[in-house]
Amino acid sequence: MSLLTSIKFNEAGLVPAIAQDAETGRVLMMAWMNEEAVRQTVKTGFAHYYSRSRKKQWKKGESSGHVQGIEEMFLDCDGDTILLIVNQTGPACHTRRESCFYRQRQDDRWITFDEPQE
Amino acid sequence: MSLLTSIKFNEAGLVPAIAQDAETGRVLMMAWMNEEAVRQTVKTGFAHYYSRSRKKQWKKGESSGHVQGIEEMFLDCDGDTILLIVNQTGPACHTRRESCFYRQRQDDRWITFDEPQE
Repeated sequence: MSLLTSIKFNEAGLVPAIAQDAETGRVLMMAWMNEEAVRQTVKTGFAHYYSRSRKKQWKKGESSGHVQGIEEMFLDCDGDTILLIVNQTGPACHTRRESCFYRQRQDDRWITFDEPQE
Repeated sequence: MSLLTSIKFNEAGLVPAIAQDAETGRVLMMAWMNEEAVRQTVKTGFAHYYSRSRKKQWKKGESSGHVQGIEEMFLDCDGDTILLIVNQTGPACHTRRESCFYRQRQDDRWITFDEPQE
């Protein structure tokens, strides 16, 4: 797949991927992809990532059902970061919040401003 | 600064930071911060990053003038990614494009869809 040759995977064979909500524009999460995750994402139309802790590739939402349908996919100037525009089913965060970025800086602290969904 | 203790810097002492345009919602770039870059960003109100190639911390726009004023700053659930909501002066990308994510996937290729600004 010639798509892959433009991507600069790091020394661990991974590339960071940012997921942004197609509807709200909110940045939902950042995770890592290996080559196989990119292939599966393109092939299936659903976001796949690589878990560094579990050392395996996974489909986002495979257990929770909170999948990410791919609307658009971008590569940055250096070829070392991917941006996914997604249709998010349910909350993106494993804490059941809409986005993983739910802690906001206030002075020298992080304040949680978002509540988990039902 | 207690803000720093919640951030999980990687083995190289870095954390990825995503910059999103406060006005348009467009994701502009992803870069890395070390502890000093986080401190300087908070202290000055302008985005500072760490260049892995030049091995030094730098103020975004210090030579181009294309600075990023910090509107809001978020930390994700794992504490290992930062999201900056910024007021971007000029193009964010060193190619003089509005965003670094100017290559869009079409089938198995990346198509450049954005033109450099004057």
